[in-house]
Amino acid sequence: MRGAVLYGPRDVRFEERETPKIVNPTDAIVRISATCVCGSDLWPYRGIQPIGQPTPMGHEYCGIVEEVGQVVTSIKVGQFVIGSFFASDNTCPNCRIGYQSSCQHAEFVGTAQAPLLRVPLADGTLVATPDVPSRDMVPSLLALSDVMGTGWFAADAANVKPGKTVAVVGDGAVGLLGILSAKQMGAGRVIAMSRHVSRQKLAHEFGATDIVTERGNEGVERIKQLTNGIGADSVLECVGTQQSMMQAIQSTRRGGYVGYVGVPHGVDLNGEQLFYAHVHLHGGPAPVRRFLPELISLVWNGKINPGKVFDLTLPLDQVAEGYRAMDERRAIKTLLRP
Amino acid sequence: MRGAVLYGPRDVRFEERETPKIVNPTDAIVRISATCVCGSDLWPYRGIQPIGQPTPMGHEYCGIVEEVGQVVTSIKVGQFVIGSFFASDNTCPNCRIGYQSSCQHAEFVGTAQAPLLRVPLADGTLVATPDVPSRDMVPSLLALSDVMGTGWFAADAANVKPGKTVAVVGDGAVGLLGILSAKQMGAGRVIAMSRHVSRQKLAHEFGATDIVTERGNEGVERIKQLTNGIGADSVLECVGTQQSMMQAIQSTRRGGYVGYVGVPHGVDLNGEQLFYAHVHLHGGPAPVRRFLPELISLVWNGKINPGKVFDLTLPLDQVAEGYRAMDERRAIKTLLRP
Repeated sequence: MRGAVLYGPRDVRFEERETPKIVNPTDAIVRISATCVCGSDLWPYRGIQPIGQPTPMGHEYCGIVEEVGQVVTSIKVGQFVIGSFFASDNTCPNCRIGYQSSCQHAEFVGTAQAPLLRVPLADGTLVATPDVPSRDMVPSLLALSDVMGTGWFAADAANVKPGKTVAVVGDGAVGLLGILSAKQMGAGRVIAMSRHVSRQKLAHEFGATDIVTERGNEGVERIKQLTNGIGADSVLECVGTQQSMMQAIQSTRRGGYVGYVGVPHGVDLNGEQLFYAHVHLHGGPAPVRRFLPELISLVWNGKINPGKVFDLTLPLDQVAEGYRAMDERRAIKTLLRP
Repeated sequence: MRGAVLYGPRDVRFEERETPKIVNPTDAIVRISATCVCGSDLWPYRGIQPIGQPTPMGHEYCGIVEEVGQVVTSIKVGQFVIGSFFASDNTCPNCRIGYQSSCQHAEFVGTAQAPLLRVPLADGTLVATPDVPSRDMVPSLLALSDVMGTGWFAADAANVKPGKTVAVVGDGAVGLLGILSAKQMGAGRVIAMSRHVSRQKLAHEFGATDIVTERGNEGVERIKQLTNGIGADSVLECVGTQQSMMQAIQSTRRGGYVGYVGVPHGVDLNGEQLFYAHVHLHGGPAPVRRFLPELISLVWNGKINPGKVFDLTLPLDQVAEGYRAMDERRAIKTLLRP
């Protein structure tokens, strides 16, 4: 089969790769209905996070189960399934408490930009939809595999509650779906920090009530102005830089909550500053698996449509253009169909 | 009147100071029944936190109201009262949400090692006991002014719940009262990290079920061994150094809670390390005022006896010896009677 391989900065190739097979009896092979390019794929794509060797890419996936290992019991051939970027057994103590991305047997699923994918720990990792979905619903189900689950975790970690004021730092797919999540959780006011017109539009569609275009200290000041000088109750940090993290912490009211899901790159938090900020801080790699059943149900019943973040759809063999479009900010997120 | 003044490293003098008077109509003057020396007083006493000029000391207090300003309505002359080290109006948005130590009009109360004390914002700051207490009860009521309220906040911030496993980093008065708080909140198991025999004894009295004497990575390993390799549900950080903070974070299970109340000195948190630790982090200067009514009731009804942390009682004029005994670790905490 042919799939995506990253060779170095801005060099993604669509080339022959080994066809995945069952390796462990807990594995499943999934025929990919759709996969996509993640904002976090851009870190190695841009060379900011160097790779040692040609690396197969892709960690977001959904599709039809083609084969299962001998001990797989809950997942059946022919089912349409979604999984997270971390395979998890869903039975260890970390999984049972809802932190499947810290599963004691977690394995990163990183070869999804291809027609076929081996998923380890299939029973723990994969969740089947009630039936095979229509082609139209596939983008929204695919979004659950990472960006929607991650935006939801950010809102959950930031303790979003009905009627509360929420601010979202970052207008990438995760930030936008953080807005959707906050709205779905009943937030009274959702302030999107965004300076890109196309993203502001989607932010409004997803439920943003206010847009703040300023960044850094000016952005913080603007949030304060919008909240009687006290800051937002909940702030979602969806970028992962020092500036975005400090912007999130300083935009939060005393006793408020920061949910951070942007993978930190060069972030250092000053203990004293954090101490006097008086905020709650929680985040990390999103335990997407925890939220999959609820999110599948919301998509299935037409309550949410996170697939709207895909503003570019390409055949899988044009994966290189999919990366380029996101790198150059021509696309928010690229969906790829094998 | 005569009170304590810090002149420089290890130089505390008991000398003539101006007798406090009502300055603002919201003030009260309190005749101190007991005051004490705080672990945090040792930072400037040791010269680690330099002072610019001779500085009156003391931020823990209880006593009888001697005089109130013209607009004070809820606090009456003759009442026995306790207040926090931060005066607060208890009506601003930060106060109303329970973060009185971040009151928009907060004022540090820092001249309590003296017979008389001016307390700003008396109506918001002071809480009266049901009656004038017996002399025996005074130490436990005094403890509420800071160390007990701070230990309680650490346990509250660390989300201590019935049956859960709690670890406490730091065996000073705050750490010891964090143990008492965790026990009172129903913790199933309380692991004290302590290497001093006299403090271990008090830790056991307050409810510790296990003692860990190791520190740093060895301490973390020991906590893991005691918790089936997963870490404690809740960890109270009651020191404020880089080592103690990392020890707290790494001893916490994924999805668990760190409550930190040690005033940070040179603490820097690596964003990536924090991200993958998957813990909840909350802390800061304890909003003692929030907890005063409940804690007064617990002391008044004999449910808790936090005054046990005072293992040295001196007349106020021997304040210098009170500091020395704590500096040399001959005393956990010194109570001073004017």
